[in-house]
Amino acid sequence: MIIVMEQSSDPKLTDAVVTRIRELGYEPHLIQGSNRQVIGAVGDERGKMVLQSIESMPGVESVVPILKPYKLASREVCPEPSQVEIQPGLVFGGDELIVMAGPCSVESEQQIVETAHAVKRAGARILRGGAFKPRTSPYSFQGMEEDGLKLLATAREETGLPIITEVVNPRDVELVARYSDIMQVGARNMQNFALLKMLGQLDKPILLKRGMSATIQEFLMSAEYILAEGNRRVIMCERGIRTFETATRNTLDISAVPVLKEQTHLPVVIDPSHATGHSSLVPSMCYASVAAGCDGLIVEVHPNPEKAASDGPQSLRPAAFADMMMKLKDFADVSGRTLPGVGGSL
Amino acid sequence: MIIVMEQSSDPKLTDAVVTRIRELGYEPHLIQGSNRQVIGAVGDERGKMVLQSIESMPGVESVVPILKPYKLASREVCPEPSQVEIQPGLVFGGDELIVMAGPCSVESEQQIVETAHAVKRAGARILRGGAFKPRTSPYSFQGMEEDGLKLLATAREETGLPIITEVVNPRDVELVARYSDIMQVGARNMQNFALLKMLGQLDKPILLKRGMSATIQEFLMSAEYILAEGNRRVIMCERGIRTFETATRNTLDISAVPVLKEQTHLPVVIDPSHATGHSSLVPSMCYASVAAGCDGLIVEVHPNPEKAASDGPQSLRPAAFADMMMKLKDFADVSGRTLPGVGGSL
Amino acid sequence: MIIVMEQSSDPKLTDAVVTRIRELGYEPHLIQGSNRQVIGAVGDERGKMVLQSIESMPGVESVVPILKPYKLASREVCPEPSQVEIQPGLVFGGDELIVMAGPCSVESEQQIVETAHAVKRAGARILRGGAFKPRTSPYSFQGMEEDGLKLLATAREETGLPIITEVVNPRDVELVARYSDIMQVGARNMQNFALLKMLGQLDKPILLKRGMSATIQEFLMSAEYILAEGNRRVIMCERGIRTFETATRNTLDISAVPVLKEQTHLPVVIDPSHATGHSSLVPSMCYASVAAGCDGLIVEVHPNPEKAASDGPQSLRPAAFADMMMKLKDFADVSGRTLPGVGGSL
Amino acid sequence: MIIVMEQSSDPKLTDAVVTRIRELGYEPHLIQGSNRQVIGAVGDERGKMVLQSIESMPGVESVVPILKPYKLASREVCPEPSQVEIQPGLVFGGDELIVMAGPCSVESEQQIVETAHAVKRAGARILRGGAFKPRTSPYSFQGMEEDGLKLLATAREETGLPIITEVVNPRDVELVARYSDIMQVGARNMQNFALLKMLGQLDKPILLKRGMSATIQEFLMSAEYILAEGNRRVIMCERGIRTFETATRNTLDISAVPVLKEQTHLPVVIDPSHATGHSSLVPSMCYASVAAGCDGLIVEVHPNPEKAASDGPQSLRPAAFADMMMKLKDFADVSGRTLPGVGGSL
Repeated sequence: MIIVMEQSSDPKLTDAVVTRIRELGYEPHLIQGSNRQVIGAVGDERGKMVLQSIESMPGVESVVPILKPYKLASREVCPEPSQVEIQPGLVFGGDELIVMAGPCSVESEQQIVETAHAVKRAGARILRGGAFKPRTSPYSFQGMEEDGLKLLATAREETGLPIITEVVNPRDVELVARYSDIMQVGARNMQNFALLKMLGQLDKPILLKRGMSATIQEFLMSAEYILAEGNRRVIMCERGIRTFETATRNTLDISAVPVLKEQTHLPVVIDPSHATGHSSLVPSMCYASVAAGCDGLIVEVHPNPEKAASDGPQSLRPAAFADMMMKLKDFADVSGRTLPGVGGSL
Repeated sequence: MIIVMEQSSDPKLTDAVVTRIRELGYEPHLIQGSNRQVIGAVGDERGKMVLQSIESMPGVESVVPILKPYKLASREVCPEPSQVEIQPGLVFGGDELIVMAGPCSVESEQQIVETAHAVKRAGARILRGGAFKPRTSPYSFQGMEEDGLKLLATAREETGLPIITEVVNPRDVELVARYSDIMQVGARNMQNFALLKMLGQLDKPILLKRGMSATIQEFLMSAEYILAEGNRRVIMCERGIRTFETATRNTLDISAVPVLKEQTHLPVVIDPSHATGHSSLVPSMCYASVAAGCDGLIVEVHPNPEKAASDGPQSLRPAAFADMMMKLKDFADVSGRTLPGVGGSL
Repeated sequence: MIIVMEQSSDPKLTDAVVTRIRELGYEPHLIQGSNRQVIGAVGDERGKMVLQSIESMPGVESVVPILKPYKLASREVCPEPSQVEIQPGLVFGGDELIVMAGPCSVESEQQIVETAHAVKRAGARILRGGAFKPRTSPYSFQGMEEDGLKLLATAREETGLPIITEVVNPRDVELVARYSDIMQVGARNMQNFALLKMLGQLDKPILLKRGMSATIQEFLMSAEYILAEGNRRVIMCERGIRTFETATRNTLDISAVPVLKEQTHLPVVIDPSHATGHSSLVPSMCYASVAAGCDGLIVEVHPNPEKAASDGPQSLRPAAFADMMMKLKDFADVSGRTLPGVGGSL
Repeated sequence: MIIVMEQSSDPKLTDAVVTRIRELGYEPHLIQGSNRQVIGAVGDERGKMVLQSIESMPGVESVVPILKPYKLASREVCPEPSQVEIQPGLVFGGDELIVMAGPCSVESEQQIVETAHAVKRAGARILRGGAFKPRTSPYSFQGMEEDGLKLLATAREETGLPIITEVVNPRDVELVARYSDIMQVGARNMQNFALLKMLGQLDKPILLKRGMSATIQEFLMSAEYILAEGNRRVIMCERGIRTFETATRNTLDISAVPVLKEQTHLPVVIDPSHATGHSSLVPSMCYASVAAGCDGLIVEVHPNPEKAASDGPQSLRPAAFADMMMKLKDFADVSGRTLPGVGGSL
């Protein structure tokens, strides 16, 4: 950490800062600049964030952190990409591009089973579907809850597809864990630390969505909450950030893929449906995401978007999804990824 | 709701939309524009948000909502300002400007009791202090939890000040309710709907902070979650939004005060400490907030900001807080507000 | 345009609005909603924006535009994609993916000629280089001005590559037009309407960069300024928007590609260098942009990024650029685009 | 400037950076951290921004600037607040709070003269009015140009009020200077550096508006462009920044007032009309701005907002403006400012 003193600051104030740096267990290094003094504090900044409090001392202009605040999520601790195994032969972060697909909300047995068959035929490897829905309005459909989980389990039995579903309340963690193969933390809960800590204690893969206004560093800190509790199977999911642009629901930050790949060993997937909010934009964003180097996609598919209980406008119809998967295979190929089950005889 | 058809859309597509509007229980009104057809759907849009799904129908270009999606929080349902009583003689939304003050985190009995006395002497009416702390890093101080709540209760006994403290986990609602006079929902939990629903079932005032990237409409929808469960004592708190500017921690959206006053009957308070992140900016933002018409303030005060376990840089020292309160009284006066206990013989 | 009246508004106020709508040359259609009156104003809203002023009339809650405000840039006026020809055989918006490359600033004859040869060998079809540089600081290098233009012309003679360069001042339009094949409007000048109008009167292709905080609609309105003056050869360039994220210089809004493709017939290119600010992120963003459907790329290449007068950190070295072009060819292929001159014997 | 090396970087890479720092005229100071090496480069970073290019050297992780990049605008160079005199007895940055008011656009002699009399009666000291209008749409009213300037001059003769008006094209600088007392640079032109340089050579006060997405540091750098050319009479104007919030046209960043007051000696004024976009929000934002410590206000006033050629919805009627000024006087009083001509017998 670097402490910058004010231009006119008294040498006694610098002394006090130096003393405080030592008290906190760091080693101070003084640089006499042309305009002001700068003090380097050497030591591991992480684990004890209190160094920041030096900013409150008289004569201090600013405090600049040098180290990234996360450890377990970093490439420094784990230089090689992690692979997150869902079941034997189904791994995020390996050669295969993993596509998850399904409706925003589970609405009925017919809807979810029919969709599961359709997305499987098209090449999806995992079924998505929401049973607990965090909705902006208390008057919107809030999800089928445990009944929805049961229908997901039925769809899994019928198709063999593992299921991913969202958990929104620490109270429901055990319940959702019982039914699901991957547990999803939604964007609104990326900093629901009580939830993250509980998920960190499970032996279950977690898909962590980036908060709508979270920096990539904050996103990695939320992953760190899960990792620090012992669960190392975390998948990062970019799903669009909030900007001033209104043509899309959010702005897909596709450069987050290479940035995350530089900074973390964890697999990275993209949700183009929530990012754009319009089904017509989803296919091109899938192609772009794969070209950018993502490890997987999570895509909303609904047999009747105009009658969907939620997020109809961003859901692909099964036929459009199948067409997209065919073309996606070509992009996967040139990206050095496999997409088994598409376009072949599987 | 207004449905805009594409320019070239087939009359049959328009017919299908009209039929669907009727199915959903609305009355369609067709306007033949010069370039395209526009259909008004008359009926109460709230309570059944599915009308939005019409956007997925072929030939539909866009769907434009007309009504605001909240009811109980609106001026239309409750034209007069609500008053939220904390205890007899202590009311948000009345003539008195209510100042809440105290440290970010409860750290020790001495720290919280000393601060409580200091802020009371300066004119604060409510003591703030965090026992459960939602922190970006898992390695940062996470709060004293129930021990912190007990220390807050001690400080209340010593000073008579009611206390406000944050709850972050639905599991802790009952515990926090037992110790506190006002329960705070932090910015990161503004859309923690499970938490909001539980708080809606309490008989306890709730201070709801605006999410870092929440629109004012979404903020009001979160209030609606609490109101819809039966708890009508909700206080709205603007605490800065996330923008590209880095000179301040967040950007205080002070125009949210008059916007909220136009749209809702609920009291509105401002948190200038989290908004700015720098104690030197807090006093001027307090004056501005009162001038803009807010009903109260929540301000971080710490006896030793340079040793604070969290948020030291934005905490005022007790003497600076007392100076600010003296000057604030003048701004309260010209804003038609009282600030009893400041500058007088109380 | 839709005018929404306040809930409690007097019928006389509605009458006044209806009268005003007629005065302005539109036909009013009244819809009596369950909560409030809504008035549709039928007529072409564009060309006379004054309808917006109705928002100031008593009793009016809001005014909602229905039509897009641009015409010449729209798909409605020109349903087929436009092709912008730079010279015979070099066309934006056709089958070929056009790559423009070169240094941020022209610094010397050796630097620009050497770079021109290098990018040509790698498959670039157009040379970029800045002679007039809009820099945030008055103390930064401001460009070589006319001397820089002359060096660009030399590089064109040496390599046969057409050149694109930025113009920042209406005064220099004629000068820059004399030397360049495409004139670039930078992000900071996207709403420099005096400049846009002058460029609209030229017979020269214009590459228009999106402003850092411009919505796509505003971006198209700026194109409309050029088109409305008679110059139809406009190329749209997305180059990142300003958000809260700091890991990248800007956030590349790659979904702007399909959105623009839906809304306008004009070609769309991407600048991944300014968007990301880091050369290590540029290749993956090039691949993603092509996969998203863009018509071209503009990429910064410098022989010695660590000695560049501007934007070194985001410039690729020639070898890295050549590697990227080889891989880009595969992405172009599966996107249905040609990239002649790469990987072959040209 | 601080250069942070990558964790695993070779000592030879560090040596190369140290050598390069010396070549550029700085003195290197090496700090051996626990995880990585950090190099301080001592010397004045401003005036030669090339140090940033070190970020491109192999082994360098990041480069962190320490000094602010502006000089003449800074408190370090000029610790005391500057006063900008418009005419004898009319000074920005002194005790008096200066209110500028008038219509967005000059539309007719009657309109501008009538408004000038009205705002003068209410206490405004300067008349605002646009003759050159930068409009998003080419189909919107573009201003009366020189005829508008002549009408402003007429209004000045009739009322004695000095006039402020916008200049948008370097070509028009001399023309606008001839008619105006203060020249305004609009938000869209904050980084029109050609324009700024020309204004820097005038002997005329300049009101510089903050760009919609400009950081405060960039805003000060634009002021530096004018100051560096020799014109020291610059007034900074905050007018709202672009955020995701849509309830207001922009988000008024009122904390920019104390931030600017800490960082620069230049006077600071607020434009609440463009910031909010709604006349009903303007009065409370005026009060808040004064309470926050601004030196002046610029407010849109129009005799018939519903017939205004531009920006009607945000314009106050003369009577509402007069009421606001009466109440503003009380806020000016408690802020230690005078507002002569209001509420008295002047």
